[in-house]
Amino acid sequence: MDKFAKRMNSMEKTAGIVKKLFGAMNDPDLISFGGGAPAREALPVDIVREISNEVIRTDKRGIEALQYGPVVGIKDLREVVVKDLLEPKGVKAKAENIVITGGGMEAINLLCQLFIDPDDIILVESPSFVHSVEVFEMFQARCIPVDMDEDGMVTEDLEEKIKKYKPKMVYVIPTFQNPTGITLSQERRKKIAELGSRYDTIILEDDPYRDIRYSGNDLLPIKAFDETGHTILANSFSKIFSAGSRLGYIYANDEITDKLFDAKSATNSHTAMLPQILCAEFFKRGYYPAHHEMICSLYRERRDVMLECIDKYFPEGTKRTTPDGGLFVWVELPGIIDTTELLAESVSNPDVKVAFVAGEGFYAEGGGKGRNCMRISFGGVEPDKIRTGAKRLGELICSKLK
Amino acid sequence: MDKFAKRMNSMEKTAGIVKKLFGAMNDPDLISFGGGAPAREALPVDIVREISNEVIRTDKRGIEALQYGPVVGIKDLREVVVKDLLEPKGVKAKAENIVITGGGMEAINLLCQLFIDPDDIILVESPSFVHSVEVFEMFQARCIPVDMDEDGMVTEDLEEKIKKYKPKMVYVIPTFQNPTGITLSQERRKKIAELGSRYDTIILEDDPYRDIRYSGNDLLPIKAFDETGHTILANSFSKIFSAGSRLGYIYANDEITDKLFDAKSATNSHTAMLPQILCAEFFKRGYYPAHHEMICSLYRERRDVMLECIDKYFPEGTKRTTPDGGLFVWVELPGIIDTTELLAESVSNPDVKVAFVAGEGFYAEGGGKGRNCMRISFGGVEPDKIRTGAKRLGELICSKLK
Repeated sequence: MDKFAKRMNSMEKTAGIVKKLFGAMNDPDLISFGGGAPAREALPVDIVREISNEVIRTDKRGIEALQYGPVVGIKDLREVVVKDLLEPKGVKAKAENIVITGGGMEAINLLCQLFIDPDDIILVESPSFVHSVEVFEMFQARCIPVDMDEDGMVTEDLEEKIKKYKPKMVYVIPTFQNPTGITLSQERRKKIAELGSRYDTIILEDDPYRDIRYSGNDLLPIKAFDETGHTILANSFSKIFSAGSRLGYIYANDEITDKLFDAKSATNSHTAMLPQILCAEFFKRGYYPAHHEMICSLYRERRDVMLECIDKYFPEGTKRTTPDGGLFVWVELPGIIDTTELLAESVSNPDVKVAFVAGEGFYAEGGGKGRNCMRISFGGVEPDKIRTGAKRLGELICSKLK
Repeated sequence: MDKFAKRMNSMEKTAGIVKKLFGAMNDPDLISFGGGAPAREALPVDIVREISNEVIRTDKRGIEALQYGPVVGIKDLREVVVKDLLEPKGVKAKAENIVITGGGMEAINLLCQLFIDPDDIILVESPSFVHSVEVFEMFQARCIPVDMDEDGMVTEDLEEKIKKYKPKMVYVIPTFQNPTGITLSQERRKKIAELGSRYDTIILEDDPYRDIRYSGNDLLPIKAFDETGHTILANSFSKIFSAGSRLGYIYANDEITDKLFDAKSATNSHTAMLPQILCAEFFKRGYYPAHHEMICSLYRERRDVMLECIDKYFPEGTKRTTPDGGLFVWVELPGIIDTTELLAESVSNPDVKVAFVAGEGFYAEGGGKGRNCMRISFGGVEPDKIRTGAKRLGELICSKLK
């Protein structure tokens, strides 16, 4: 028995890395710079309590919350996406082109259902978000890396690889990228949309961090430059509302939206109703702007403390990014340190007890790339603990160089 | 662009039928015997309101509800499945072998992720639930029908087809089957578990209706007879708690549970937290037994009224099943009537305005089978409306025979 489908083998290695990611989030003994969960303090518990009391109070809304709902999501939430999230970013959409998904990860999954046959090629940033790569591998795609620099995906390399590999899809996290924290420049955003149109390739723009910006200027999404429907925007409510609600959305053209109905129906019929209703009301009742300001200021402080501590405690020769938002900073250590080994020691050594994510797993190309890199998440840790954790980790690293 | 993946073409025809199913649920002008949604009156709105007030009141539970959670579901709900749902049915499971899913449909989807490569064969009942067949087709499986009689899937035919086709999986809805309402006999349950073991074939037991029984004796699940782990039990909370919460579960052996972690993680990270918590508390606080009794008595009346009305208003020569539970009765009309045409008239004729589901779509084999059959759902319609609707529909059918 247990003749598992081929896709389960294709994803095996990445799945192991993702399993560790989930594991790293929950050990209470650790100071965890692993995971990418929002801060406890950034979760609108009081607001949700208030809304939920009112929503379930009437029988009509109560029944709506507990009965089957629309495959592509409730109208209220699709309208919120259009008015509160896309319009302010220069993207004019119709609610009929929004599909509500079970989080941002399900958005990626559904788009793979639509487009990816085994051996199709997906171009990804190098490094890219390992959990998305896991999804691509489950669909038996081949992931080919595209170079990145401090302005994000290098469009010259992208164009060359589009010509060479004729990919089905280009996967980009343009804003405060996971894992690097790097933001794709405005000019390149425009260019990538154009490349999608010119070479008839889907640009999957995954943008879950864009609304938690702490410095610098807001940029238009790639989708804002798309004139042919080749760019598909996927996003998540996990960072701005609640991760546990598992809510995300896709904005795409009519033909794709229509196919998404089928894929969503055959995945889980529709997204859970109560989270959708609570989230829609969160925006419609005007709670978002103040909440948004609160979480940005919370995360800004944590980012500042983290960057300061890395500069202070990590050894000379350390390189790091300067994220203008999001939850991650990417650190490159002096070459001889293997971060996978470092991590094993760092979580088990009773004097350290600090977790992070080793860099190697974020490189789809393998071959030891990123071996001396680490993704450090600052969002979920209080400033005092950031100081303690970064100091301990920095001292451990320094001890390796002696 | 829009070179959709092959799977999207494979599922196209069935997807069209499923789209109509979803459509049929929501037209307020119709008396709808279509859809399979639970009755409004069967949704525990008051109980959920009470629980949710308490659950989100404390910050700890509030944060749990809004933060990322475990990939395979919360411990509380997995334990509820073991103690409240499986143990009383003669199935001894460990909570570690339960995976919480986004409804019963996602359970089917995840098991296809695990096991189905393109062109793999799945044996299904003839007729079978069209929405599941849609999922199988999205995974590019070939569905081969197995005969049914009044005791469910005919095990002689099943064994023959297992030998002939060497299927990856056998899909069975053993209790109050969708669409027929037929229940698989105890003897055949045992036999099917044995065939799975003997021929090294997965038996996917999909059992969402089992707990809403109105007459006859409770039977053991197929899984209770499984000695080798070849039977996998999938179930849903949609009929006994809430459909909109999108909660279901899979009970499988260790190896499969481990792979389900990967498939679930790459589908949508995990199931929404608040619905899981509310559902777990619904059972843990002891609300289920009284609620269960209430919904069974509600549906029992509706079934009785529906069967009585079919016998009274439908023409001579009509055959129907006698479901001991669930939501559906299967009707076979005198041969010359095409139910797809009948449906078109029945929903549009202002003197009728009654919906049902035409039988043809439930036959994976096609070829016009079931053309004179219909699935009639009695669960969501009040008794008075059942009487009105069945009378109008019966009169329309009789008018065709004149």
